[in-house]
Amino acid sequence: MKEKLYNIIFEADTPEGKAYDVALIIIIFISIIVAFTESVPTLAYQYKFALEIIEGILTVVFTFDYCARLYCSPKPRNYALSFFGIIDFISTIPPYLSIIFPSARYMILLRSFRFIRIFRVFKLFSFLNEGYLLLQSLRRSMRKIMVYFMFVLIMVTCLGTLMYLVEGSEPNTQFSDLGTSVYYAIVTMTTVGYGDITPITALGRLLSAFVMLLGYTIIAIPTGIVTATFIDETQRKSERGKCPRCGNKVEPKDRYCRHCGEKL
Amino acid sequence: MKEKLYNIIFEADTPEGKAYDVALIIIIFISIIVAFTESVPTLAYQYKFALEIIEGILTVVFTFDYCARLYCSPKPRNYALSFFGIIDFISTIPPYLSIIFPSARYMILLRSFRFIRIFRVFKLFSFLNEGYLLLQSLRRSMRKIMVYFMFVLIMVTCLGTLMYLVEGSEPNTQFSDLGTSVYYAIVTMTTVGYGDITPITALGRLLSAFVMLLGYTIIAIPTGIVTATFIDETQRKSERGKCPRCGNKVEPKDRYCRHCGEKL
Amino acid sequence: MKEKLYNIIFEADTPEGKAYDVALIIIIFISIIVAFTESVPTLAYQYKFALEIIEGILTVVFTFDYCARLYCSPKPRNYALSFFGIIDFISTIPPYLSIIFPSARYMILLRSFRFIRIFRVFKLFSFLNEGYLLLQSLRRSMRKIMVYFMFVLIMVTCLGTLMYLVEGSEPNTQFSDLGTSVYYAIVTMTTVGYGDITPITALGRLLSAFVMLLGYTIIAIPTGIVTATFIDETQRKSERGKCPRCGNKVEPKDRYCRHCGEKL
Amino acid sequence: MKEKLYNIIFEADTPEGKAYDVALIIIIFISIIVAFTESVPTLAYQYKFALEIIEGILTVVFTFDYCARLYCSPKPRNYALSFFGIIDFISTIPPYLSIIFPSARYMILLRSFRFIRIFRVFKLFSFLNEGYLLLQSLRRSMRKIMVYFMFVLIMVTCLGTLMYLVEGSEPNTQFSDLGTSVYYAIVTMTTVGYGDITPITALGRLLSAFVMLLGYTIIAIPTGIVTATFIDETQRKSERGKCPRCGNKVEPKDRYCRHCGEKL
Repeated sequence: MKEKLYNIIFEADTPEGKAYDVALIIIIFISIIVAFTESVPTLAYQYKFALEIIEGILTVVFTFDYCARLYCSPKPRNYALSFFGIIDFISTIPPYLSIIFPSARYMILLRSFRFIRIFRVFKLFSFLNEGYLLLQSLRRSMRKIMVYFMFVLIMVTCLGTLMYLVEGSEPNTQFSDLGTSVYYAIVTMTTVGYGDITPITALGRLLSAFVMLLGYTIIAIPTGIVTATFIDETQRKSERGKCPRCGNKVEPKDRYCRHCGEKL
Repeated sequence: MKEKLYNIIFEADTPEGKAYDVALIIIIFISIIVAFTESVPTLAYQYKFALEIIEGILTVVFTFDYCARLYCSPKPRNYALSFFGIIDFISTIPPYLSIIFPSARYMILLRSFRFIRIFRVFKLFSFLNEGYLLLQSLRRSMRKIMVYFMFVLIMVTCLGTLMYLVEGSEPNTQFSDLGTSVYYAIVTMTTVGYGDITPITALGRLLSAFVMLLGYTIIAIPTGIVTATFIDETQRKSERGKCPRCGNKVEPKDRYCRHCGEKL
Repeated sequence: MKEKLYNIIFEADTPEGKAYDVALIIIIFISIIVAFTESVPTLAYQYKFALEIIEGILTVVFTFDYCARLYCSPKPRNYALSFFGIIDFISTIPPYLSIIFPSARYMILLRSFRFIRIFRVFKLFSFLNEGYLLLQSLRRSMRKIMVYFMFVLIMVTCLGTLMYLVEGSEPNTQFSDLGTSVYYAIVTMTTVGYGDITPITALGRLLSAFVMLLGYTIIAIPTGIVTATFIDETQRKSERGKCPRCGNKVEPKDRYCRHCGEKL
Repeated sequence: MKEKLYNIIFEADTPEGKAYDVALIIIIFISIIVAFTESVPTLAYQYKFALEIIEGILTVVFTFDYCARLYCSPKPRNYALSFFGIIDFISTIPPYLSIIFPSARYMILLRSFRFIRIFRVFKLFSFLNEGYLLLQSLRRSMRKIMVYFMFVLIMVTCLGTLMYLVEGSEPNTQFSDLGTSVYYAIVTMTTVGYGDITPITALGRLLSAFVMLLGYTIIAIPTGIVTATFIDETQRKSERGKCPRCGNKVEPKDRYCRHCGEKL
């Protein structure tokens, strides 16, 4: 009985297991829509009763799912501390937490992490491999990116201070303090440009134009870092006799990977 | 007679065929300008009569063109279900549909897809090859991009929720509900930054600055993916003894492709 | 005498030639600052007399310079039709044109093109080679970029129409006509995001979020195209026994280019 | 005694030296927070007394640190003129300067540069190597980037002038003078898009859309330049028998760098 439950809940190969996972994905989707609807005051008022009932049912379902997973898992502790175990726990507790902290109920949006299971249900394992390749490339370029970030933070602090000195003494200025000015420098350098804070003096605009052109150029640096790593990672894998997509072994003669059909 | 019509309408090699295609491109251009003019209330009122007459004529011309294509095509069904057949059909029906659904007449802007024929008229086949190369590169990197998108969507949901928790309780806040907050997170992370919704608390601005710097960095990921694929695709083609631009065979000794003049 | 004048005006090797060029660059800089100052109503009124005198002197200087170039050039027609000849002509006529068309005087900002001469004065020829390499890479990727642009224009038309259908019927909508909606789609997809036109309905925001994420991804395409061409161009040059920076011949053994010191 | 002080202040290997550096980093962090707090009028008023005392103590500490460094350094002049020596001096003088120029006290934000020492304390030398690699790549692509910048500045001047001619004569226009229009062109082309200045005529919007699409495409150029240089730099280093990360010598057989563990 315990083993049968395990197959339904944890495996996606049997029809029951697949049906269970698909049902769960639909329920997560509904719970996210409920959270979005509840946050709109007019809708929350209008459909108060319906939303509360749906939320109650969803809470019961998620609680049951988590308990069942803990029960039928051969090593409950390993499951509870695994990536998916933690995600499942975080998906379950918000309604209970919200009794004490009302704003905790919005944590149910963390349920969106459970969508990652979608790859298992639809046998998109090679997608997970792609994601792994992405992560590996990012991890390898992490050091360069952190040095770059430190450089950006120091630059943004200096430019924000300069903007404060230039614009801060104007009457009705939007650069009311240093924090706001550094925030402005970040908004400008990342080319977001809300427009809630804008320079009005000629010198402030000249300095801002310089910040923009600087930001426009240094946007090239992380791209260069990540691209160089990607190309390197792809070449590395293909040289070692592995398929660059799925990672399985390939013969030097093969023109297509025999596991995922990737051209070599 | 049917064959002669076929040559005029479907081929672009004869002077008549070319003249027909050029005329059609001009007519499409006029019909798009008419649609833009009609949507401006003052102009629609001022030139009401002229616009209605032009639209009537254009409707007749497009209807005749579509019927003629169906009539002279050797296999009408194949044509009707081809890419250009569907585009031609969509270009023809909006005026008829708009009798029932008035807003359907704006669908005539889908006629802009017919501009793709421009490549055939001016013998820009190698351009289509470039487009094909682009599409192939995109299709090969599609899996990585989808994993990346899923990651972005989950992240945007979490950051939007955080922004709602931080800013939502302020008086006169623009973060009125979860949907708006997630929309804000997308606007910020993609560096669009309209400025219609902006944080006002210090914590909200700190969090937004983090979102911006994150978005600024992860913009590097799709670029890295696509670039790596492009480089790979170009090298692959050139290694197999094919011209990287037109795809024709080339001898290893050739310094220029004998088909399109591309340097090798 | 004619030859001596030629050396002063056209050559930058002699001390007189260099002094002449430096003087000209300073004069161009002054004329640009004059144009900027004149366009500010308060400053134009305050310094009216001084600005008019400076402008008069600058007009005489530029006219004299152009006439002298025509006079001492061995083949005046070749000079007049060369790139720099046309730039020099355009730099000279605006004050005369402005007698007939007052707004023509702002054409003096086209004098900024004459700054390109700065490379000659300071012997920065290798910079021109870099510029040439950039242009060559762009020309080679031009076809792909044009196909990409056509794709973007068609997409922007369709998305703008959709936004108009979704948002156009709202009271007090900013999506007043199709042209404005397509303009909005371009502003959003290029991640500029002024915020002068923003969606207010939930559906409009959902569609906009889709446009942003799309724009965020397809920004990767031109980058990929240009980068792949750059890498290709650099490798091509180095393989043919030419320095990738200055383009001069190098021996396979050389570790540094003997012309510009570039590492090989 | 002088040597012992040298070991504490300049070295990070001994426990005392490390403790000294960590204490200094904490103090710099506090001094930055004080600067941010002081610039907010309400907070500056509320905590006036506390802030003044903390600032006084910090000034004493930084002054003592700088004097001690000068005293115990074997060659005080070399230290005073080194990169860190100048940073330390700039970190020390603002409070004294602010007696004469009140706004000089915001220069204490330049203390953020001292955070670079963090790499030494936590033995993150390989990070400095990454930074060095980044700088080297940027220096090698500097020429191309400068040519590109000159091109952008000329283009922005011309487009700003055009926008001024198109929009400047409208009643209540935001394009009040040439400087503002060029500023607008920079804001648009770099995709920052504040929205404080926006076109209102159809022609102005058409021109702006062109500027955006242009900016969207030419953003690819610096990225292409930097990426090509990165890839080149990485390949160059690995070919010459050096580890691409730490720069130490590696044998051709090694699969991992024996100095930093980087895969080869």
